[in-house]
Amino acid sequence: MTYDTLLYAHSGGVTAVINATAAAVIVAAREQRGRVGRVLAAHRGIGGVLREDLIDTAAFDAVALERLARTPGGAFGSCRFDLPRDDGGAVMDRLFAVFDAHRIGWLLYNGGNGSMDAVARIQAEACRRGHPLQCVGVPKTVDNDIVGTDCCPGFGSAAKYLATSMLEAGLDIASMVGAKGSVFVMEVMGRNTGWLAAATALAAGGDPDRAPHIVLVPEVAFDEDAFLARVQAVTQRLGYCAVTVSEGIRRADGSLIQEKSRDPRGYVQLGGAGSEVARLINSRLGYKFHWAIPDYMQRAGAHWLSATDREQAMAVGRAAVEYALDGHGGSMPAIRRLQDLPYRWDVTPIETAPIANLERRLPNRFVAADGLHVTQMACDYIRPLIMGEFAQPTVDGLPDYRGFEMVRVNRLLPNWVG
Amino acid sequence: MTYDTLLYAHSGGVTAVINATAAAVIVAAREQRGRVGRVLAAHRGIGGVLREDLIDTAAFDAVALERLARTPGGAFGSCRFDLPRDDGGAVMDRLFAVFDAHRIGWLLYNGGNGSMDAVARIQAEACRRGHPLQCVGVPKTVDNDIVGTDCCPGFGSAAKYLATSMLEAGLDIASMVGAKGSVFVMEVMGRNTGWLAAATALAAGGDPDRAPHIVLVPEVAFDEDAFLARVQAVTQRLGYCAVTVSEGIRRADGSLIQEKSRDPRGYVQLGGAGSEVARLINSRLGYKFHWAIPDYMQRAGAHWLSATDREQAMAVGRAAVEYALDGHGGSMPAIRRLQDLPYRWDVTPIETAPIANLERRLPNRFVAADGLHVTQMACDYIRPLIMGEFAQPTVDGLPDYRGFEMVRVNRLLPNWVG
Repeated sequence: MTYDTLLYAHSGGVTAVINATAAAVIVAAREQRGRVGRVLAAHRGIGGVLREDLIDTAAFDAVALERLARTPGGAFGSCRFDLPRDDGGAVMDRLFAVFDAHRIGWLLYNGGNGSMDAVARIQAEACRRGHPLQCVGVPKTVDNDIVGTDCCPGFGSAAKYLATSMLEAGLDIASMVGAKGSVFVMEVMGRNTGWLAAATALAAGGDPDRAPHIVLVPEVAFDEDAFLARVQAVTQRLGYCAVTVSEGIRRADGSLIQEKSRDPRGYVQLGGAGSEVARLINSRLGYKFHWAIPDYMQRAGAHWLSATDREQAMAVGRAAVEYALDGHGGSMPAIRRLQDLPYRWDVTPIETAPIANLERRLPNRFVAADGLHVTQMACDYIRPLIMGEFAQPTVDGLPDYRGFEMVRVNRLLPNWVG
Repeated sequence: MTYDTLLYAHSGGVTAVINATAAAVIVAAREQRGRVGRVLAAHRGIGGVLREDLIDTAAFDAVALERLARTPGGAFGSCRFDLPRDDGGAVMDRLFAVFDAHRIGWLLYNGGNGSMDAVARIQAEACRRGHPLQCVGVPKTVDNDIVGTDCCPGFGSAAKYLATSMLEAGLDIASMVGAKGSVFVMEVMGRNTGWLAAATALAAGGDPDRAPHIVLVPEVAFDEDAFLARVQAVTQRLGYCAVTVSEGIRRADGSLIQEKSRDPRGYVQLGGAGSEVARLINSRLGYKFHWAIPDYMQRAGAHWLSATDREQAMAVGRAAVEYALDGHGGSMPAIRRLQDLPYRWDVTPIETAPIANLERRLPNRFVAADGLHVTQMACDYIRPLIMGEFAQPTVDGLPDYRGFEMVRVNRLLPNWVG
């Protein structure tokens, strides 16, 4: 029995360019027609593998692949599921049963820190079993927190979207300055790391009078008094103040800046960090306030992709196919920065086992000494990653994201009851 | 004394294309060099006129005008100020003193319903005084609620931004479908009218399975039970549900869907309609929820302009100069729809007095019979307005919105102490 099927799966939160990686994997695998038979994709991540819910990508013609490579979200679906460590091996047994049933010799797993842990463990299990499977990781996350790679595909486009949003909203609020002072707060993703918040600093271009005037990141404990003093100083000088807040900022005691109160009907009310910070400013300083929460929009904004990010997303997909076919299971393509200006980069394999479940936070040199902004070094690091535009084809004024025909692979195993 | 100065001012909330109107006014006025002397802009709207805070646009060269025409927000600043009716004429006296001091013969006032009231009253006052001033309105508002014009410059770009955002966020949430069901709520601008909420329906393209599955507008009283039943039905069918909520939706008793509760420290907590609706779904149906509030981003998103909107914004600016110089004070250029597909339109003068302070709401035929969505007719109306893209020049991956040199006109009058 030859294991000539290649399986692609992704996991966790999606990005604006995760489908670009998927398309690159499919194209690269097809170029190995002598060695690679079928190219399958798991429906909804590793859960789809367990349920034996697999999609045959042969139905994707060149037109569909081109469209896939520029459509945001995960066309094959994703899931939030960690491989258990304490189930007596039932999940691993099932995974390998599916690999055997469909002659899967290569598994490309596209995800973040947790997914790299899965890659390392599945590869170790294959070795233990003497199974031919080569499992290779493919990095992606808007959080930019995978260790061992200069940056993560997905981050650059989200960073470009947020920096542009802060630039544009900053021009809007600057137009509306009134006598009373006003603040604008934008809450961005980042539970543990401030990479996306830091990206908004690009909008200011180093000018202390331009938005954002304050950037709050989870790496620094929230100091309410220092923060309010700065908001007041900026507003007294300019008439307004624009603030970026990571969703995950915490006080020195570790508590999240997030309201939990009960409304008159007794429902628990969960406010995010952005609304809480805006409300705090209003109640303590009396300024008018607006807040924005881009939420999914920031990681799905493919109408305004970073061309650099898209190129890197495809490059890691192609490289992962190469590593898998070279028998380099357990590895992941990492992006290496060769030069800042002009930006030069390449892709090189690293082992997933040492980086699994680690989390890269903003280094100290990227955070301003007062903890209320990021440094020029942070901007210099992020700037190349948002460079370049990609013109989305449109239909009737909207990006052309028409859907895809998904052809299911026949199931060969009993239902999974995990 | 010749009144050969043209003054441009805008008022109220800004848009992604209000500066396109301003640039078109300046260019068109310069083309009348024989008749028009200086072209001034009020700093921060009508308040700038009262404070005699005026900007000489002669400092804008061709490069600056090109950039102005594609920069979001109001470069000259705006204000929220209504002409008082009960101040014994002090404000009118001051306005005409400024018009006299700077030989202002033409005032172009760019705004919404309230601004058109000001246009009609200032023109009536000029007639009463036998003053040569010709005051002409120029429509703008993302709310699309000015009566007498087919649409309002600023709306098309905000509509395109929001429809694209719902399309993209819809693909994201569709990727993340889990066993428990999840909802995504996007709160859009519109205190009294549902035009912007309706625009998001373009993302679905008439497909009931695509986001948004529900659109709540202020024109329909919020029926909690009917709404929750629909959310449940959609989520049971698809695994998720995407909802657009106008910020101004109200219950049948007229109360806003907006939480006012107190947090543990006693602060009043103001939740918007979006978060309240999301929380309601969670507490009643148990689904996971996300919500987005694009806030200023939706009206400042010039990185993704509607080319049609931009063209109309410039056309009304040019037409207003023409009407003013033709002595058609008290008028406003209105956009007339000549044909739907392909979209054809022109600009024609209408009187501001009859439309001042009116508000155009969604007609009944644009709202679905069950009040939970908008109709195909609504989509057919909005679609042409979002068509066409405009490629923003970029610097280092961000739109090139470098600022402008603002040259102040010397003050000739005593300070205004209104």
